[in-house]
Amino acid sequence: MCQLLGMNCNTPTDIVFSFTGFATRGGLTDEHKDGWGIAFFEGSGVRLFVDHQPAISSPVAELIKHYPIQSKNVIAHIRKATQGEVTLENCHPFVRECWGRYWVFAHNGDLKNFTPALDGSFLPVGSTDSEQAFCYLLQSLRRQFGNCLPETGELAVFLQKICAEIAAYGTFNMMLSNGEALFVHCSTRLYYIVRQYPFTTASLADEQVTVDFSELTTPQDKVAVIVTEPLTSNEIWTPFVPGEFRVFVDGDVLTAEAL
Amino acid sequence: MCQLLGMNCNTPTDIVFSFTGFATRGGLTDEHKDGWGIAFFEGSGVRLFVDHQPAISSPVAELIKHYPIQSKNVIAHIRKATQGEVTLENCHPFVRECWGRYWVFAHNGDLKNFTPALDGSFLPVGSTDSEQAFCYLLQSLRRQFGNCLPETGELAVFLQKICAEIAAYGTFNMMLSNGEALFVHCSTRLYYIVRQYPFTTASLADEQVTVDFSELTTPQDKVAVIVTEPLTSNEIWTPFVPGEFRVFVDGDVLTAEAL
Repeated sequence: MCQLLGMNCNTPTDIVFSFTGFATRGGLTDEHKDGWGIAFFEGSGVRLFVDHQPAISSPVAELIKHYPIQSKNVIAHIRKATQGEVTLENCHPFVRECWGRYWVFAHNGDLKNFTPALDGSFLPVGSTDSEQAFCYLLQSLRRQFGNCLPETGELAVFLQKICAEIAAYGTFNMMLSNGEALFVHCSTRLYYIVRQYPFTTASLADEQVTVDFSELTTPQDKVAVIVTEPLTSNEIWTPFVPGEFRVFVDGDVLTAEAL
Repeated sequence: MCQLLGMNCNTPTDIVFSFTGFATRGGLTDEHKDGWGIAFFEGSGVRLFVDHQPAISSPVAELIKHYPIQSKNVIAHIRKATQGEVTLENCHPFVRECWGRYWVFAHNGDLKNFTPALDGSFLPVGSTDSEQAFCYLLQSLRRQFGNCLPETGELAVFLQKICAEIAAYGTFNMMLSNGEALFVHCSTRLYYIVRQYPFTTASLADEQVTVDFSELTTPQDKVAVIVTEPLTSNEIWTPFVPGEFRVFVDGDVLTAEAL
């Protein structure tokens, strides 16, 4: 299986602290050594870094740990291959364009006998069930909404339905972002936390690193972090209920219906 | 205007030497300081690095200069903004998926009143004429060949036609690759060189760096480099004729008709 990390904020924030703990699991404190990737939205642009080397020894991961890229929406993934070889094209996150926006997707889990009919508008480049699911998801969106990007609420209600449909084929913990919102579906295991005023000190669970967020933030900042396993040892993380779908906008946690 | 750099080889090769000279033009020996980008094919996967900081001071460019990524097809670009703001989404190269493959595109030049009718299958995320041209190009391919990737020869003949059509709107020096071949159209200025046995020593024109390729290669290696301005001072670069279209496959230079 793999691990997922997502961040959604109301102000561009760097993910150096969380990524440092997360990357440690890519071969050191955990066995997810079959590649990794991270995508940062910056305005409507995306920076995507993928590597089929373990995150713990990747020079690109080293760069990310020391280069504070500011972003309001980030998705990262460390991989333990279940389907698909250890090659670059099979590393998450995957990126596609739809309605003149980039969409970023990462998946943790395993889908069995999932062979959706793809019409060619979005096709997988690699051989993972995950990229198939991403293509099916975008194709479904395009079929449902035609040539117009819908409002986030409308989008979320439809995505929740498609995620439940895909999840019937196996484990489908997934994160999807279009740079505005971060959509999250949980099949089995995901946690989240919203850091906001008054900010406190957090200590990584995987490395001996502590940070005082009150020194790095303003009272208006709101930062949601979503992850497969809690990253810090001294904060309270909220578990997702299996089957739950949440939307993160500007650091707020919402249900599809509430949008 | 901008500058382009492309590489096509018969064996995965690193571009550290050429990129070092090229990146120097991003703010130091030349004025192309409005961002840069580079895309490497690795199998069917792509590593894309883009940055709206000048290449000369970008930490990501620093990584590329020291991390020898092996690739058979590379496209790089340094930007001096003519159309579109200096933002990440306007940095070349651009990447899209078509027929289950990634396509990488970069453009140097300026298109006037180029507003092709786009049907929604590929839409620009940023505001450059270049990304418009890329979307139009892929849309034209999909319309011409339906759901099947054609042979490289057939593809080249059609691309040559579309490039000539777009070039009627202004300057269209462009590089396009699907990981198999590197397609190049020249409106005004491009040079190429094919390095092969017997390999010699080359000295960068922009920095005091010399490399002896015979120490780094095997006699079978063939490496084509295509660039806006020759990168080395002691090798013979072949200029493209304005209007010329070339295809590079496994380090060989071909015309569309010869494939």
